[in-house]
Amino acid sequence: MIAVTILGNNSAVPSHNRHPTAQVLQTAEHLMLIDCGEGTQMQMSRYKIKKSRINHIFISHLHGDHYFGLIGLLNSLALNNRLTDLHIYGPEKLQSIIDIQMDLSGTGFPFQFYFHKLQKEGILFEDKKISVECFEVNHRIECWGFMFREKKNPRKIDIQEVTNFKIPKSFYENLHHGEDFVNEKNEVIKNEILTLPVEPPKSYAFCADTAFYEPIAEKIKGVDLVYHESTYLADLEKKATLRFHSTSKQAATIAKKAGAKKLLLGHFSSMYDTLEKFKEEASEIFENTEIAEEGTCYLA
Amino acid sequence: MIAVTILGNNSAVPSHNRHPTAQVLQTAEHLMLIDCGEGTQMQMSRYKIKKSRINHIFISHLHGDHYFGLIGLLNSLALNNRLTDLHIYGPEKLQSIIDIQMDLSGTGFPFQFYFHKLQKEGILFEDKKISVECFEVNHRIECWGFMFREKKNPRKIDIQEVTNFKIPKSFYENLHHGEDFVNEKNEVIKNEILTLPVEPPKSYAFCADTAFYEPIAEKIKGVDLVYHESTYLADLEKKATLRFHSTSKQAATIAKKAGAKKLLLGHFSSMYDTLEKFKEEASEIFENTEIAEEGTCYLA
Repeated sequence: MIAVTILGNNSAVPSHNRHPTAQVLQTAEHLMLIDCGEGTQMQMSRYKIKKSRINHIFISHLHGDHYFGLIGLLNSLALNNRLTDLHIYGPEKLQSIIDIQMDLSGTGFPFQFYFHKLQKEGILFEDKKISVECFEVNHRIECWGFMFREKKNPRKIDIQEVTNFKIPKSFYENLHHGEDFVNEKNEVIKNEILTLPVEPPKSYAFCADTAFYEPIAEKIKGVDLVYHESTYLADLEKKATLRFHSTSKQAATIAKKAGAKKLLLGHFSSMYDTLEKFKEEASEIFENTEIAEEGTCYLA
Repeated sequence: MIAVTILGNNSAVPSHNRHPTAQVLQTAEHLMLIDCGEGTQMQMSRYKIKKSRINHIFISHLHGDHYFGLIGLLNSLALNNRLTDLHIYGPEKLQSIIDIQMDLSGTGFPFQFYFHKLQKEGILFEDKKISVECFEVNHRIECWGFMFREKKNPRKIDIQEVTNFKIPKSFYENLHHGEDFVNEKNEVIKNEILTLPVEPPKSYAFCADTAFYEPIAEKIKGVDLVYHESTYLADLEKKATLRFHSTSKQAATIAKKAGAKKLLLGHFSSMYDTLEKFKEEASEIFENTEIAEEGTCYLA
């Protein structure tokens, strides 16, 4: 299960009590942060998210509304005597921005801090349960999307059936991985009989700030939940293109082409004080669309 | 008249819904910002302070809770197409921190931006109505206090009296500056008779982050309103000294020695969830003490 809590859904300048981009992604094992606009640490306090539990932070690009809150968050983790390793993934120059400010404060990190610069598309992090990839989007400066994929859970042994069929314990590991059992009489006992179904793995795509860019749909094919920016309503498509942003309908088109199950819209321009129309417009193209509301947790 | 609105009264890590240091100082002519912790621009929105009206920003030192909100504020001013000159006064390295982040965003400033590095005690800004000086305090890194002094208002002409005494118009300017008039018969007509009293000039001292440091009292002698940090209660004096911070009673002692009229306490440690005791303790030494409450405007 992947759960994504929206901490900020506004673009550029904070307004209408909406905040700059930040999202928390949670699985049973991980709490990851995606982008970190100014005030993210305060938003985490407001929505009762423990900042000490974050071990991985992904920064899409170096426009301020996506990272100005990072240094404050790191500073607070340092002052709170965090000891656990922390991994940050972002454009190369982010490291010098962090370094200069931490050096000047004379605070330093009591924890190990690993900076991973984004260079090419592919896997950034992987363990037994999840993988995180980055992919290129199309913005005014270097900018990356992130794809989070849970790994297939091992199938569960059905104790009653393995006992009935007298399956040797040494074969259980093979059953976990979906193999059928062949007994001494050369009879095949199907894996589906011997094991119980498990939750299918989920996926989440964060498409950062981007103009309408069809290759994204290929990168996130079949994703369960996709967040796609929708800075403007459809009538401002020209403005969106000029500024390397997208409209509601363009976001929906990407979700549709990707065969996504659900679309979250965000990064709304400060020119809009209400957001219903974004959902209305996008739903004409892709029905299962939601506005990314701050403080709300969405499940992939 | 000088009015100071508190935007943040907490130290180091934001907590208990308190924010890092930032204060807005207003006179009839100016809106100045003193320190700019993370989220200052959001606090300005909350308390209906127009960020476009700020022309001078003073940063006391480079601990993050005093400046991490600056880059976000500047970025928003740029995105809002501010055109008016902006002056920032702060420790030298602040300029490179601003430059690196603005360069990377590719945004740049549409307004003229002047950085004034703090180097020695003395006048930073002066016009007909106000002067701003910086003075050294005693913190773990380079740190400055700021003293704001209104200039003496010119006395107002009492039209009835100047007509009675047949004072020539050419002498009015001298009357504004307090001179007596001597007529042809060599009679002295006192300025007090010919002019009306005006509001006496006010002063405000912001003492930044500092250990107990008696020279501050000399620097701010006779100030109307002094803000002095009070990170800890009196029982933690040793801890305060070690960390180059002050206690409630130390803040009150400085206000008393300075002959201040009123004391504001702030920069409270996150270890305190309520603040009444700070006022209680300080009042034993200096009666006219207030807790600097966020969103409240205090008059010098």
